[in-house]
Amino acid sequence: MTKGALALLVHGGTDNWSPQRWKSRFDDVCEGRSVLLLPDASFDPADVHYAAVWKPHPGELAVFPNLRVIFNLGAGVDALMADRSLPDVPLVRVAVGDLTARMTEYVVLHVLMHHRQEPYLRESQREKRWAPKSQWAAGAISVGIMGLGTLGTDAADVLRRLGFRVAGWSRSPRTIDGIECFHGEAQLEAFLRRTDILVCLLPLTPQTRHILDRGLFEKLNRTSPLGAPVVINAGRGGLQNEADILQCLDDGTLGGASLDVYATEPLPADSPFWTHPKVVLTPHNAADTDPDEISKYVAQQIARFEEGGALENVVDRKRGY
Amino acid sequence: MTKGALALLVHGGTDNWSPQRWKSRFDDVCEGRSVLLLPDASFDPADVHYAAVWKPHPGELAVFPNLRVIFNLGAGVDALMADRSLPDVPLVRVAVGDLTARMTEYVVLHVLMHHRQEPYLRESQREKRWAPKSQWAAGAISVGIMGLGTLGTDAADVLRRLGFRVAGWSRSPRTIDGIECFHGEAQLEAFLRRTDILVCLLPLTPQTRHILDRGLFEKLNRTSPLGAPVVINAGRGGLQNEADILQCLDDGTLGGASLDVYATEPLPADSPFWTHPKVVLTPHNAADTDPDEISKYVAQQIARFEEGGALENVVDRKRGY
Ligand SMILES: NC(=O)c1ccc[n+]([C@@H]2O[C@H](COP(=O)([O-])OP(=O)(O)OC[C@H]3O[C@@H](n4cnc5c(N)ncnc54)[C@H](OP(=O)(O)O)[C@@H]3O)[C@@H](O)[C@H]2O)c1
Ligand SMILES: NC(=O)c1ccc[n+]([C@@H]2O[C@H](COP(=O)([O-])OP(=O)(O)OC[C@H]3O[C@@H](n4cnc5c(N)ncnc54)[C@H](OP(=O)(O)O)[C@@H]3O)[C@@H](O)[C@H]2O)c1
Repeated sequence: MTKGALALLVHGGTDNWSPQRWKSRFDDVCEGRSVLLLPDASFDPADVHYAAVWKPHPGELAVFPNLRVIFNLGAGVDALMADRSLPDVPLVRVAVGDLTARMTEYVVLHVLMHHRQEPYLRESQREKRWAPKSQWAAGAISVGIMGLGTLGTDAADVLRRLGFRVAGWSRSPRTIDGIECFHGEAQLEAFLRRTDILVCLLPLTPQTRHILDRGLFEKLNRTSPLGAPVVINAGRGGLQNEADILQCLDDGTLGGASLDVYATEPLPADSPFWTHPKVVLTPHNAADTDPDEISKYVAQQIARFEEGGALENVVDRKRGY
Repeated sequence: MTKGALALLVHGGTDNWSPQRWKSRFDDVCEGRSVLLLPDASFDPADVHYAAVWKPHPGELAVFPNLRVIFNLGAGVDALMADRSLPDVPLVRVAVGDLTARMTEYVVLHVLMHHRQEPYLRESQREKRWAPKSQWAAGAISVGIMGLGTLGTDAADVLRRLGFRVAGWSRSPRTIDGIECFHGEAQLEAFLRRTDILVCLLPLTPQTRHILDRGLFEKLNRTSPLGAPVVINAGRGGLQNEADILQCLDDGTLGGASLDVYATEPLPADSPFWTHPKVVLTPHNAADTDPDEISKYVAQQIARFEEGGALENVVDRKRGY
């Protein structure tokens, strides 16, 4: 008996995420199973039982009549959810420790950059000015995390250890030691009012699209010790209204922004974000994960699934994440 | 019976550390005791039982015949130890949680900046280039902390939590959970060989002066995933040979440097550090502490001392820290 094939559909990503690299990692861990790198391989679509994908084109997955599970090679499934012909089989997203750890690095780094006045200090260095400003204790600063899932919870834990006052906001109620937890529409405003540094780690769904807009920014702590509140978005570009961010930075509603994700990626050359003095920009690499760990995770899930075990991290299609 | 006076001698520091600010904080916590702000106050030196000082001039403390304790308002006592006429009374240094927490912020921020290729990412932003590079997992990077005292131990703990491989080096042997501990001259080389990011939190003593020199940098991990190892110094400027740092950055022995302290402070306008593309410079504000917490700490120690209790954090003059 031959094992059902695994089809790989990988578009975009960094050099670390080249399709060839994925192919060789999956070859290493999928003993006795053929791994087909699409669209180049010649194969029979009926042989394919599993698909491991990153940003597949709409319709690309509909061609496999015997598909059993789709594995999304990252945490966010918004691109897949937009595919109206997506086969109705379990959709599993990757939530490995390595990805979480890297996102926590990104969040801690960018919270500290704003808290410790890095933009001001780099400007002082360029101008050869020795001009230390007073700094706030972490305990004077409230960090608010939108999204208390795998990623938000881990980042919250390290920020709390650093002494920040940390709150979080989720859809359903959560209880986390040392973190003030808010949930749902009704508690959003109370969450925002106390927040000096807002970190967005939400999934992109119809409910969260463009949630980061002027109306929301105006509810952040207007008497922040930082002068004006700061926003950090490492969720998805579709969560932010980019025109609003720019205007709010310019009129002082926001004091700064760290952005890893954008409405259009790569960020177009004419985007004002590139040169805005209050924007700290990264090229969607907040949590660039090692294919090693992800391919092992997928292979283990397939093995368990074939022995009749339950899949982990199955996406709830109704919720959209 | 009147209480012996407390003399305040504060030179330098940020706006947060103005002598007037110290005076009003000490007035708040020293009930029934006069607080004299030198050199302006007119007073009888014989009334002074305690001195709270920051960078006093040599000889300034020798004028008090009835001095009982000297409190250093920061963690490093190197400036005091250079005063050959320093009265032979207990010298207490401040080691409050607030100072430790702020130093940990600084260390975590700068380790992450180098680990996450911040200098490269800022340059890409300036050049409007969307060019993500692969990043290393924290577990692939070894951070080595010189000095496992109050400050080094706390920073090590957070770096370990972030997933870095963390080692430390001290004078006497230490055992710390999850941290590989080295000590003494004999183990220095083994400590350096495994280190990709070197963090210096040593006190400045005759033994540690200019310890950060070319000979030491050349022993750091020559096959670092970062390309070349990085040095971060937030101890004292006297710990570093500045000409060696510059040459090592230029010939590739070092890949980057974060410096908070310098041989001469403020850093002279003609220092090449200001404009060096591989140097991330801060104006000795890694751990700018709130006078509130420090003045309370000093007042508590005086109260306990007058009831016959032992002083905390007394400097060992033979060791020099
Ligand atoms: N920039 C990058 O490199 C990068 C890398 C990885 C992931 N990401 C993004 O990060 C997102 C989060 O990942 P994760 O693994 O933490 O996801 P997760 O475990 O599914 O957590 C999502 C969190 O968001 C909350 N949420 C969802 N919809 C909401 C709504 N309408 N109102 C309030 N809260 C809502 C959820 O609430 P409940 O707790 O009530 O379910 C949950 O707390 C991903 O979806 C992806 O887009 C970005
Ligand atoms: N940049 C800033 O804003 C700032 C702010 C505060 C402090 N600092 C500096 O940070 C320094 C450290 O503060 P701390 O409170 O952590 O001091 P600490 O508690 O006294 O710890 C000093 C550490 O250095 C080690 N050490 C001393 N001499 C050594 C030698 N010759 N060889 C090897 N290890 C040696 C000690 O070893 P043992 O464990 O064996 O004693 C100890 O682990 C201060 O002295 C000050 O200069 C800078």
